[in-house]
Parts: sequence; structure tokens; C-alpha cells
Amino acid sequence: MDAPKDAPRDAASLDRADPIRARRDEFDLPEGVIYLDGNSLGPPPRRALARLTKTATREWKDGLIRSWNDAGWIDLPERAGAKIAQIIGADDGEVIVADSVTVNLFKLASALIALRPGKSLCVEGDEFPTDQYVMDALSKIHGASLRRIEGGAIPDDAGVIVRSLAHYKTASIADMAAAEAKAARIGAAIIWDLSHAAGLLAIDVKRDGAKFAVGCGYKYLNGGPGAPAFVYAARDEAQKLNQPIAGWMGHAAPFDFAPDYKPADGAKRFAAGTPAILSLAALDAALEIFDGLDMRLLEEKARSLGALFLERTDALGFPVLDTKGPRGGHVCLHSENGYQIMQALIAKGVIGDFRPPGLMRFGFSPLFLSYADIERAAAMLGDIVKTEEWRQPEYSKRSKVT
Amino acid sequence: MDAPKDAPRDAASLDRADPIRARRDEFDLPEGVIYLDGNSLGPPPRRALARLTKTATREWKDGLIRSWNDAGWIDLPERAGAKIAQIIGADDGEVIVADSVTVNLFKLASALIALRPGKSLCVEGDEFPTDQYVMDALSKIHGASLRRIEGGAIPDDAGVIVRSLAHYKTASIADMAAAEAKAARIGAAIIWDLSHAAGLLAIDVKRDGAKFAVGCGYKYLNGGPGAPAFVYAARDEAQKLNQPIAGWMGHAAPFDFAPDYKPADGAKRFAAGTPAILSLAALDAALEIFDGLDMRLLEEKARSLGALFLERTDALGFPVLDTKGPRGGHVCLHSENGYQIMQALIAKGVIGDFRPPGLMRFGFSPLFLSYADIERAAAMLGDIVKTEEWRQPEYSKRSKVT
Repeated sequence: MDAPKDAPRDAASLDRADPIRARRDEFDLPEGVIYLDGNSLGPPPRRALARLTKTATREWKDGLIRSWNDAGWIDLPERAGAKIAQIIGADDGEVIVADSVTVNLFKLASALIALRPGKSLCVEGDEFPTDQYVMDALSKIHGASLRRIEGGAIPDDAGVIVRSLAHYKTASIADMAAAEAKAARIGAAIIWDLSHAAGLLAIDVKRDGAKFAVGCGYKYLNGGPGAPAFVYAARDEAQKLNQPIAGWMGHAAPFDFAPDYKPADGAKRFAAGTPAILSLAALDAALEIFDGLDMRLLEEKARSLGALFLERTDALGFPVLDTKGPRGGHVCLHSENGYQIMQALIAKGVIGDFRPPGLMRFGFSPLFLSYADIERAAAMLGDIVKTEEWRQPEYSKRSKVT
Repeated sequence: MDAPKDAPRDAASLDRADPIRARRDEFDLPEGVIYLDGNSLGPPPRRALARLTKTATREWKDGLIRSWNDAGWIDLPERAGAKIAQIIGADDGEVIVADSVTVNLFKLASALIALRPGKSLCVEGDEFPTDQYVMDALSKIHGASLRRIEGGAIPDDAGVIVRSLAHYKTASIADMAAAEAKAARIGAAIIWDLSHAAGLLAIDVKRDGAKFAVGCGYKYLNGGPGAPAFVYAARDEAQKLNQPIAGWMGHAAPFDFAPDYKPADGAKRFAAGTPAILSLAALDAALEIFDGLDMRLLEEKARSLGALFLERTDALGFPVLDTKGPRGGHVCLHSENGYQIMQALIAKGVIGDFRPPGLMRFGFSPLFLSYADIERAAAMLGDIVKTEEWRQPEYSKRSKVT
């Protein structure tokens, strides 16, 4: 869904008309950088940095062990979870922050397939690798067949399906309501991977009937590198689930030190070990930015930024990895020299990333990007292509993380 | 093992003779606090706070996504793991920092029992609850019987045993070499939970034949609240193990984005999702304190601090939770009013913690405590008992975390 054709197309007017342009002040972005990779690692909100300092000094250094009570560390996974619940349309107590997406997907899918013996585990064949690895591993543990599906097709023997709401390469947005309707007919459970969607799209899990989700804290939620992830489980469903990584923080009464496991109520049972408080505190503060924000404005702006970028780079002739439907917050342009072009662009301060094969990925985080940023980034990409600057040998050097 | 009977027993001489007293300068402890709970949450080393600031600002804020390469975030789990390897006598590549103790125990025990079909999972009946919960959960998943054992007895059908090297209540130290010898005879695998031992005891996994361990980063390693945990797996053994939480960070080539899982070499295969970098960076810096430090000095000092504490509180008549053997870094004194007495003590700045039933737990972290601290703490405990100050109603109020 691109911006309306009659909308003003010059960046300056778009910026003036942007209802959320003031949110940029929440961030302290480095000089000379246009950051088109907030979909991979969100930049730090000022309040996240301030909170981290407070947590490290006033809470850890001065409060020491007392801060588990006095600074409320013990409830932080639930408090941060409640903020994420607001962002995705869930209720209080239905979201907990814990562990990583990988670990959370393992917990949730394992608990769900255990209730559906004889059914299959399903994952898209081009899904983010971790989601495929976890489902494959679980198929061995539970003796369930693994089905690699395509384009959201749900087979009739499906027990548990994992699916990204926004795809990590195409940014294609799945039809949550339609998928849930099909799943309901056959008794299957869908776990939505919201990693590339939470904090960007106007998700409404209740409206669309979604009952389970996982997602990461470090992309559009801006929680910091490797920020803890989350689990959403609708209240009535959560009570039926026994997740396998039974740890004290998911216990109904951890400080009774009872020898037998009794899961906590609701999503809290998906907690396991002691949470990484420093990382969690930064995320919790970052989530405050979304308080009272209409998520539809974010989704619209992301799409509009993306449309402007595609318009301004159209003449370069790079094929766009297409979505055949609504697009989330990033686009991929293809070039067999994509890796080198992206390196040359990063060297000039326009930061995107690279995904094989040959995809230059550009993300349009609406909280801190302006239309003027997009216009400048597109112009710089044009320059690099025109001057063939990307042919410099230094841009071919592969780094570990792309 | 108490200090030799002929050692000088006044705190001032003990402090003057303490070969590691200068390490205290690594910490910036709050005024008026004697911290006897470093066994539960270590205080922040100055260098951990400095590193956290650097990671948050220069790396996250200024470097953004580039810091995965430029600041070496991608290798941090291995680099921190190599530092822990030094502390426990393992080799490079045998320790990885990841997730929590709960999650790591799940991964390791699951991989090990899968190779020992028909064998049992064993855990001490008074082991730290999470260890019991995880083994119980795994017994259901793998259809293995669960045995609650006592006093280190290893049944002949044992497949996988989890055991704390230092017990969380008694601080009793297990005989690692003897247990490993028995396990070797029957083909069982022992997972040592080093949570209350790493960074305190002179562990030598190679000398004692230990092949597998997990442990936490936030106690004697001072890595920060909920700091990431670690997994140790001896090199030859690690290569045989398929841990079930297959995530991209444990993949041999994560940035190939291959659809099939291929585990990394060595302990690295126990990584799963994206690591919580802020928390991990603090831990990594905290570990630097141990560089070049003879762990025997730490172990001896902890025991000597504990002996002084027991000597100076002996007249109060609290029964000591005994170890029937060498003791680690903490002691528990029993009183039916233990909760209130501990609260009164904390209110005066002497911080220990409480474990049911009625146990006042005092930890003796040798890196930052002096003998003078111990003497003062014992005197304050005596005062509180004498004045019966603990009877004030405010000290009966239960907090969430004890």
C-alpha cells in the first residue's frame, strides 16, 4: 500500500505534514548518519540510556541485592510485557519479556505441539532461519512431522504453525485474521513471529484472533542489542500450556523454593531463569516512547517513507523484492553487487544491511527518520552507482555480521 | 575446613596479611554497607560500570548496527567464555556465555540424556529448585525416569546427574573427582552447577575429570543482575551433542541464513538466540578482575572470612547449617526468627539474605570483603539479638524477593 498518488512528494512538505515528527527528539542519532537499519537494531532512545545509567548505578551499585524489591526488578518482565501488550493489542498479563526469540519460540511451540499429538509442525520454507531450526529440532523431540509450507498455506494436519507477520526479507505482511480463521477450523495454533512487526505495525491480536506470538525487543522496539524478547499467550490459552523450560522465574511462588514446579498464571509461566536486568531495563524504558502513540501513524509513515525511497531509486533499475501485498517497514533491492554497494553506502553514513543473495535491505523506522533523510539516502545510493565507487576493493571485504 | 588454629584471629592482622586485599579497589561499595550477599548478586566492579557506559554510548549509540563487527559484539559470548574457562580450568572454546542457568541446564541435560536412552535423570532432593524443575520437565519429554538422590549417591542406572559443586544453602562442596570416577564407570554424565562456585573456588575441571557444567554470571563473577550464564562442555564431548534449542547463534555459519541447522564447533553450539549485549558486556568486563589471580587465594580467604564470622557469632547460639566437609563461600545460621533478624540487620547496612526455613545466609565474597567487615557485621548481629530490635513490626513485612 503506497502513499496516495496525489500526496505531496517533496520531502520537505512530507516532513512538515508528519504528525509524529517530534518523536525524533527521543533519539540522539550520530552526526552524518542516516540510519536505515532500525529494523535490525533500533538506535538508543535517550530515555533508555538514562535508565541504563540509573539501573547500573543507583540500583545495582547502591541498591545491590535490595533492588530486586526496592527497584522492582522482580516485576520488570511483567511490567515491560504490559507495555508490549499495549503495542500489539493484548491485555495485561498476556505478555512476558524473557530470553530470546529462539528460546521463546522453543517454549511456546513445544507446549502447543504437546497438546496436539499426531499433528505436524509447519514453517515457511523461506522463514527466518532460527524459526526453521527450532521447528525442525522440535519435530525430532516430539516425533511430529515437519512441513515446510509456502505462501501461508496451512495443511489440514497442521498442529503448530510459526509465521512471521512481516517477513525479514520481503517485509510482506501476512493476513493474520484469515490465517487464524483457517487455523481455528482445524484446531491448529499459529505462533506469530512479530520480530519485524512489533513497534511498527498497528497489530491488534484480539481483533484478528491471534492467540500466540513471540517477538524481539531490539528492532522497532529499540530495546538495545540483543534486548530480551517476549511471549504473548492469550489468557485462556496460557493456562493450558506447560512450557518445558521450567525455571524458578516461571514458578507460581519462586521464593518458596519448593521442590516441585507449579507454573505461574498467564504468560508469566513462560519466564524461566533470572532475567538480564541491565538489558531488560533499557528495553523497558525504550517502550515508554510508544505510550499513547497511535500505531496506525507509525505504520502509515513507514510505508510512506518506503514508497518515497522506491520512487527516488526507481531509475537505478534495481529489482525490488516484491511483496504482492501490503509491505512492512523495509524493502530489499537486488543487485549482484549488492554487498559491495551496501558497504560503500555504509562508508558514507547511510546504513542499511545485506542479506544473501544480493539483497540490499533498507529499513524505515518511522520514529526517527524524516522524509529528508530518505531523499538524501536515495541520492547517495544514486551517486555510488553512478561513480561506481563500490568497485573499490575495500568494499568487497566480508565481515562476520552482514 | 576452617583457618588454621594458630592463625592470628584479630581482624586487623588478618587484613594486613591478606594477599588480595587490593582487589577491593576494583569495587565502589556504598558507604555504610557491609555486603554479605555477593553470593546472590555480586556488586559492580568499577570496570563493569565503565564498560557498560562505553557499550551503551560509543557502541550502541554511535556505532549502531556496525558494532556487531567493529566492537566485536558477535564474538563476545566466546570471549567472555574464554575468561570463564580460565577461572574453572577449562580450555579456550570449551565455554560459551549464553542465556540463563535454567536454559543452559535444559540444553545440556537434554542433549546428554538423548544419548543415554533407558537411563535416569538424577538430581539431589535439596538441590536448587530450578535444577529440580528442569530435570523433572526433561524426564517427561524424554520418557526418562527421574531420581531424587541424596548426598551425592549415584544410582547404577544414572544417565545424567545435575549437582551443585557448592550447595546454595549449606555451601557444602561436592567431591568432583570422586563423583566423576563413579560416573565414568557407569557411563553417566554429570552436569556441575557452578553457580555458587565459579569465581570463588579453585575449580579445575580438567584435573577432576569434569566434562560438563553450567553456572551463573551474577554471583561471585559480579557480572550484574541476571548476567548471562555459561555452559562448559569438554571439547571431545561437545562435538557429540545436539542441543535442542537450535538457534542461529549456535549455527556454524549464522550469516549464511541457511534453512538447515548445522551446529557450530565446541561449546559455541550451546548458543541459541541473539545475546543480551548490554548485560554481556558488563559481565565480560567484570571477568577481567580474575585475570592472573590465583583462585586458591580466593577460596582460602572466603573460608577464612567465614571461619571468623562463625567464631564471632558462636556465642549467639544460632545453629549452623553444617556441611560435614569443606565449605564454600557462605554460611547459614538458623533461627525461627531468621527472617526478621535478617531484615533488621539489612536495615543497619549489613546485607545478607534469607532462605526458608529460617536460614540467615551470609556470603563471604573474598574480592571485596575485609576481615574488619566481618567483625563489624558479627557485632551488629549480636547487637540486634541483644536489643531484640528485630521484634519491631516493620521487620516482619515479607517482600517478594528474600
